[in-house]
Amino acid sequence: MNSPRPTGVPILRLGDVLVTGLLNELDDRSAVAFTDELTERIVADSARGVLIDISRLEIIDSFVARTLMELTTMSRLLGARVIVAGMRPAVAITLVELGIQLTGVETALNAEQGLIALGWQRTPEGPGRDHVR
Amino acid sequence: MNSPRPTGVPILRLGDVLVTGLLNELDDRSAVAFTDELTERIVADSARGVLIDISRLEIIDSFVARTLMELTTMSRLLGARVIVAGMRPAVAITLVELGIQLTGVETALNAEQGLIALGWQRTPEGPGRDHVR
Repeated sequence: MNSPRPTGVPILRLGDVLVTGLLNELDDRSAVAFTDELTERIVADSARGVLIDISRLEIIDSFVARTLMELTTMSRLLGARVIVAGMRPAVAITLVELGIQLTGVETALNAEQGLIALGWQRTPEGPGRDHVR
Repeated sequence: MNSPRPTGVPILRLGDVLVTGLLNELDDRSAVAFTDELTERIVADSARGVLIDISRLEIIDSFVARTLMELTTMSRLLGARVIVAGMRPAVAITLVELGIQLTGVETALNAEQGLIALGWQRTPEGPGRDHVR
């Protein structure tokens, strides 16, 4: 089994949606590893959606922004829709100040909203309370 | 911001459900850190459900089993329901051979089934195809 990427969250499969995230800034090597792993998993798991949580990222520079844009395009070519969720307000401000618009990247307020956009919904019952075993 | 636990997956919040996982064997210290972080997040996020993905674990010894049982009980005391998802067949075989039954721990075949048990469901539309921007 491969060891987990140092910069990223393992990829969790929820039906035809893959859920992952970024923990800290990407360097060239880990960006390539992340891209490779994610695209391979899209094909292997027949994923139709990808949720990338970036709520832990305190900085997004132009390299990370470009990686996210490229990932979005690659995933689309493979038939999967990418949603980037949980951007911090300070990151959004910085991106705009840098003139980076993340063109083509769909975003969501948080992971929950992203998962809803990718076709999951809460049931009225919630987690339930059938605790007795 | 705290650095991520070396043995675990960051905790992702999906509404009132927290999603996390274990990557490899726990030692004493990381088990305590994982327990602390998870219980604090349950309270901070008012979580009612916790999904722990263990599909990456190739070995579960009696210590990890006990940690999972204790986590389940602690979470229940805090009002949250825990589901452990994705156990490998070989792990299940080993656990039974060791006489460990994970008493009180709810399990699910995989993360998707666990999330469904915790009150999410797929919508008929799925991830959608509105890719054009």
